This record gives sequence, structure tokens and C-alpha cells, in this order.
Amino acid sequence: MEWVTIVTMLALVELAVFGLRTGMARSRYEIKAPATTGHEIFERHYRVHYNTIEHVILFIPALWAFAYYISPYWAAGIGAVFLVGRIIYGVSYVKDPASRGPGMGLSILPCWVLILGGLIGAVMQLVHSVH
Amino acid sequence: MEWVTIVTMLALVELAVFGLRTGMARSRYEIKAPATTGHEIFERHYRVHYNTIEHVILFIPALWAFAYYISPYWAAGIGAVFLVGRIIYGVSYVKDPASRGPGMGLSILPCWVLILGGLIGAVMQLVHSVH
Amino acid sequence: MEWVTIVTMLALVELAVFGLRTGMARSRYEIKAPATTGHEIFERHYRVHYNTIEHVILFIPALWAFAYYISPYWAAGIGAVFLVGRIIYGVSYVKDPASRGPGMGLSILPCWVLILGGLIGAVMQLVHSVH
Repeated sequence: MEWVTIVTMLALVELAVFGLRTGMARSRYEIKAPATTGHEIFERHYRVHYNTIEHVILFIPALWAFAYYISPYWAAGIGAVFLVGRIIYGVSYVKDPASRGPGMGLSILPCWVLILGGLIGAVMQLVHSVH
Repeated sequence: MEWVTIVTMLALVELAVFGLRTGMARSRYEIKAPATTGHEIFERHYRVHYNTIEHVILFIPALWAFAYYISPYWAAGIGAVFLVGRIIYGVSYVKDPASRGPGMGLSILPCWVLILGGLIGAVMQLVHSVH
Repeated sequence: MEWVTIVTMLALVELAVFGLRTGMARSRYEIKAPATTGHEIFERHYRVHYNTIEHVILFIPALWAFAYYISPYWAAGIGAVFLVGRIIYGVSYVKDPASRGPGMGLSILPCWVLILGGLIGAVMQLVHSVH
């Protein structure tokens, strides 16, 4: 499960870096807390950070369920697609929010594969253990 | 622990579906990213999604601690209440935010039971291992 | 791993309490759902809650990776710093958002230590298992 841990930690690094960039944008564009609006570029960084939270909360539990019930190597490989998808998303969104589609797709599709794989794997294990 | 995995994956399916509905509402009501306000119905979907994030981040770690230290079957049963509570919450909130109380209660109460159960279970295990 | 579970459950208690305080502020200052703005004090509670979500989603997976690959006792000790940091953050932010720096530092630094420790620990385990 080392590869799965490494993918998990890299997802956290990405998330923490997006948070850091949001904090730097808050400072640069002088958005005074608790406001979360006031400058378009700050708001883009903020949304990249929060959209990544939306995805990481799906990604991590599903990654581990998939790794346990299906395959840790496939889990890590699908997880690598997610990691790349998030970078594409973060970079393209800040440039132009309208261009966020491909990065979004490369983030949410791996999540669905991992969730449904983990679900099917656990159900099949349950069915097998009954027989 | 298969039932606990299944409950976890179903919570992720609910969360992902709420996210999908928010994305569809963003498109239908033409809320241009990075804005998160601008149409009442979009904002309701957005808040259902984010309120579910607030709860899922409590739910999943507590579910597993409870399953490990108390009982996986009770964990899955209490988790099923949470899953139903979230559906009631999501449906009633979008119709009328003022009606969100019961679904909210059926979400946060299971979380508190799981958190406190997991906490007490781990403390008791620690006390036992000392003797 | 009992200490690690206890630290995890206490982080969830803090997060749930911040959520409860936000709900109480919503009621006191009559912020009607789905709005998340409208009164400065409500907005401070809301941001404390969400900033804690931003950190807890980093904290919990990293805590467990660090506990598994490095040391459960060091993980719990660094986790205790995080728990204290979050209380300082929550109390100082609501009084005056400009004073949130120290509590923020005591939250994000432990997260980085746990993430990088977990990452390095998993990579070293992988390297050792190859030889």
C-alpha cells in the first residue's frame, strides 16, 4: 500500500499548495478576512482550493477502498490521473475559468471509477463471504 | 468491515451527486465561475453540497473509529440513518431552506454518536491495555 | 494507535463545535439560508468553520500515514499541537480576524510535518522493500 500512501500524500500537497496560493492572493489583492470575494483573481484561487476540497474528500476514501478490494496498483495509477487532472484544473482555472473543463473531467472521472470500484468490490466480497 | 465500506462509498455517491446537481444548476442559471451566488436555486444546491462536505468529513473517520472500537454492524446501521438523513436534507432544502431541520438532525446526530462512540471506545481500549 | 484515534476524534469534536457555533450565529444574526454573508460576526464563525475543514482534510490522512510509517506517539504529539492551534485560531479569529496568524501557523505547520513525514516514510519503505 506504499504507492497508495504516496498518491494520498501528493494529493494533500496539491491541496495545501492551492490553499497557500489562495492565502497569497488574499494578501496581494488585500481581501480582508472574513471576506471571500472582492477581486476576480483571488476568487479564482479560492474556488480552485475549494473545488479541490470537494474532490479530495471523494478521492481519498474511495482510493483506499479500491486499493483494498480491487488492486493497490490500479488504485495508484488511477490516482495519478487525478493528481495530473488537478494540476491542469488549477492552472487553467486561474488563467481562464471557462477553460476548466478538461482538468475537471480528469478529476471527477477517476473519483467515480474509484467510488464505484470500491463499492462493487465490497459488495462482491460480502456476497462471497456468505457462500 | 464490508458493510462499513459500502456505507462509506454510498456517502461519497450522495456527495458526488449533490456536487453534480450544483454543477447542473450553475449551468442552468448561468452562474459564471468563480461566482457562487446569483440565483436562489443555484445557491440552495451549492449549500446542500457544502453542508454535506461539512458532515461527510465528520462522518467517515468517526464511522471507522466506531466500527473498529465498538461494532462494525452498529456503525453501518447508524451510518444508514445518516445516508437517509442527507437525502431528506438535500430534497427538502432545495424545495424550501426553512424545512431543512429534520434532515439536518438526522445527519448531525449520527455523527455525534459515531464521534463520541469512537472516542470512548479508544479511551477504554487504552485504559484496558494499561492494566 | 489508540492515541491517534483519540486525536482524530478530538479534531472532529473541534470541527463539529465550530459548525455548531456557526449555526448558532446564523440564528442569532438572522442570516437566512442559503446566504453565507450578512453579518460580520456570523461570517467570522463561518470562516473559522471552513478554514478548519480546509485543515482537517489535510490533517487526518497525514496523521495516520505519519503514525503508520514514522511513529504513532510522535503523530499524536504533533496532532496535539494542531488541536491547540485550532482552538487559538478559532477564539482569536472571532475576536479579531487580523489576530489569526499564530493559531493559523500552529495549524498548518503540524499539517506540513505530518504530510512530508508520511510521504518520506512511505517512499523509504518502498525503497527498502525493493532491496
